[in-house]
Amino acid sequence: MSVTETLASFVVESRPQDIPTLTYDEARRALVNYMGCAIGGAKEPALENALAVLLPFTGKATAQVLGRSETCDPLYASLFNGIGSHVHEYDDTLPKNYIHPSIPVASALFAYASANRGTAQAVSGQEFLQAFILGFDIESRIGNAVYPSHYEAGWHITSTTGVFGAAAAIGKLLKLDTQQMIWAFGLAATQAAGIREMFGSMAKSFQPGRAAQNGYTAALLAQNNFTAGEQVLEGPRGFAAVTALEYDLDKAIDQLGKHFELHDNAYKPYACGLVVHPTIDACSQIREAHNIDPLTIEKIEVRVAPLVLDLCNKKDLQRALQSKYSIYHAAAIGLARGKGGLREFTDEAIADPVLSNLRSRTHAVADDRITEDQADVTVELKSGEPIHFFLEASLGNIERPLSNVQLDEKFIDQATLVLAQAQVEELLAATWAIGSCDDVGSIVSLAVHKEK
Amino acid sequence: MSVTETLASFVVESRPQDIPTLTYDEARRALVNYMGCAIGGAKEPALENALAVLLPFTGKATAQVLGRSETCDPLYASLFNGIGSHVHEYDDTLPKNYIHPSIPVASALFAYASANRGTAQAVSGQEFLQAFILGFDIESRIGNAVYPSHYEAGWHITSTTGVFGAAAAIGKLLKLDTQQMIWAFGLAATQAAGIREMFGSMAKSFQPGRAAQNGYTAALLAQNNFTAGEQVLEGPRGFAAVTALEYDLDKAIDQLGKHFELHDNAYKPYACGLVVHPTIDACSQIREAHNIDPLTIEKIEVRVAPLVLDLCNKKDLQRALQSKYSIYHAAAIGLARGKGGLREFTDEAIADPVLSNLRSRTHAVADDRITEDQADVTVELKSGEPIHFFLEASLGNIERPLSNVQLDEKFIDQATLVLAQAQVEELLAATWAIGSCDDVGSIVSLAVHKEK
Repeated sequence: MSVTETLASFVVESRPQDIPTLTYDEARRALVNYMGCAIGGAKEPALENALAVLLPFTGKATAQVLGRSETCDPLYASLFNGIGSHVHEYDDTLPKNYIHPSIPVASALFAYASANRGTAQAVSGQEFLQAFILGFDIESRIGNAVYPSHYEAGWHITSTTGVFGAAAAIGKLLKLDTQQMIWAFGLAATQAAGIREMFGSMAKSFQPGRAAQNGYTAALLAQNNFTAGEQVLEGPRGFAAVTALEYDLDKAIDQLGKHFELHDNAYKPYACGLVVHPTIDACSQIREAHNIDPLTIEKIEVRVAPLVLDLCNKKDLQRALQSKYSIYHAAAIGLARGKGGLREFTDEAIADPVLSNLRSRTHAVADDRITEDQADVTVELKSGEPIHFFLEASLGNIERPLSNVQLDEKFIDQATLVLAQAQVEELLAATWAIGSCDDVGSIVSLAVHKEK
Repeated sequence: MSVTETLASFVVESRPQDIPTLTYDEARRALVNYMGCAIGGAKEPALENALAVLLPFTGKATAQVLGRSETCDPLYASLFNGIGSHVHEYDDTLPKNYIHPSIPVASALFAYASANRGTAQAVSGQEFLQAFILGFDIESRIGNAVYPSHYEAGWHITSTTGVFGAAAAIGKLLKLDTQQMIWAFGLAATQAAGIREMFGSMAKSFQPGRAAQNGYTAALLAQNNFTAGEQVLEGPRGFAAVTALEYDLDKAIDQLGKHFELHDNAYKPYACGLVVHPTIDACSQIREAHNIDPLTIEKIEVRVAPLVLDLCNKKDLQRALQSKYSIYHAAAIGLARGKGGLREFTDEAIADPVLSNLRSRTHAVADDRITEDQADVTVELKSGEPIHFFLEASLGNIERPLSNVQLDEKFIDQATLVLAQAQVEELLAATWAIGSCDDVGSIVSLAVHKEK
């Protein structure tokens, strides 16, 4: 069997009981993280803009857009969900292949579930989780096969592999047979796109959204026996050969059905550049351990890897975006707020006198004995007392994952930007309980933005 | 100015009078050829299938699909027009970069014109021709820059560059400014996709259709200032670097505004593999010059390049598709019918006793003194008289373009498969006269299929 057929038949034949309980648990964690990001990004300009342009082209409006009041057809809902959930770049990451994996798969699945709410095709939580796990697996496995060459060439690997993940997940719900699943993968390959030159613009978050929409479309076409080439991954003009100078398709099927890629997933604790995460983490831990009042701080010394200082040596902040790459701001929010959510990187945050005072008292030193995942922080209080903390490995790493409580906090911190507190709590509880839900469309209905 | 900005500003600033009359003439020839192909393909299974799946998702149905009775929103109409016009692979080709150039650009433009018929945004023939010429130019120029490396890697260059052509053409009608046109190109690059592994399946014609739809979407988003990366073509992670091992962006701007790419366009005279074109052509010329009755033929000898015989040495035909790559069938249809339209490659055609008799009387010889563009044919009549003809260069080559009369014949041969004769003639006349049309949407309305 070809690699394409092996993957297609794996998705088609997988039964709910073939997936370990721990994998279902990790899927729920990923979905809680995803849902928080989708709500947190729901009012961002990139999404507002795309809605304004494309809503006039939507078909029958059966699907709810997450965190919004608008409805549209499920294909456009997939796109909009994808833009909103990726726009802050606060979503999950597979450190081994740089894919932000949940966006394309979950964006399509929630759109599908919403559109089919209350119908004979309503999606149970069990079916949803299974489809999500399988779509995630296909996406990441294809990524493993072409990484790093594919990424280094300039492909936005989240969208180029995400379209396969969305096709697999929706294809599973549509109950495609193996031949149809192969065609769905072919139609995904046909639409695999997205380049890293777009990073820093609205097009960045458009890409995984489009992947969700296109993967969904691929599955629909395949269901109707719209044919595609079948040597999708391994063919001489197939996805791997065309988009990667070097690839190893054995990696796509290694431990298939035994190891699930969800267990390699990581969740960002802070809504900013990864390189300042250890500093926020270390300062947050000092704050918590010593119950520090920021006004009692005399000065702060942060020792970090030289690259971190190269990238983030910015003390005088003019724009919100700069705060995401400032080692000084990272120290300040850790010590003053003990977190780095979306609210810590706004214009209001950089103007906060407590934070600006702490930034001015921070001194950063490049130290080549420190890795990019570590930070060495010394706080000197006005009383003269020094507090020292060395962070060995940053929170959010695969070895130090966010706890479920920390995922809750991250969810609430984002979702309360858009939804009322009671609604946030209800949505959070419902997302954790997705496995026992009869109709996931009802969870999506809890994510509707209501004008206050 | 970057290459991206140079091309964007060229499209934005181009005035109708900056384009030579001869280029307008060639544009009309390309559009007549395009329209015939779109009507000829309108009943094919790939299009029927896509319509069945995707029409339920269409937005407000303002645009007519060419050769069909259905209407839909103009984005989906772009896709459907693209599938129908490419499905027979009978459309135009740029021999220098293997792009089928008119499909993505014209498919989007006719959809746009149809959706805006009778409104303040109605598209005049003059505007349409200008947008078509510019979109065609951008598409082909980007192709020139990345060809052959991009094509050899396995990209379906028609769709990967076509999305830029559609974005440029629609962007011109939307009156984007240069900054917006750059973003439109960025959003096109973001969606540039399509691989050659799909050749031989329905996904093949889906690709340029999707390029039309995605390019149109890119222009709409850019019009609303949806931002994208700006080093679209030349950036280190831009379109050229990501999709071609070798490229030369100077080729994209060489003779810009002086040479128009439309003058390098070629139109297929026969609805089959290019390698058998010289044989059909030579045999058709023998038929015409000698007014031969097929029943008077004793035997036929065809001498062709060795590659031609490698690919097309199939005498016993079981399926219609095989006839497109049979040197024996090529000789038979040339001598018996003097043409090779869609009707010459059907199940009916391979079962035609006149053709099957001629196939059986044909002998093919590989001759390495003959190029792939030549054919040497000797017909021996039952009377014993030999007729010899050596074809130096095949019809449809850039040096031996189809005449306007031959384009008419090709159009009529295709369009009468779907539309009534009177309607075919009206549509043909209107397409030739597009330059003086006030509202091109009215031409599209002539292309509606009416149940007989």
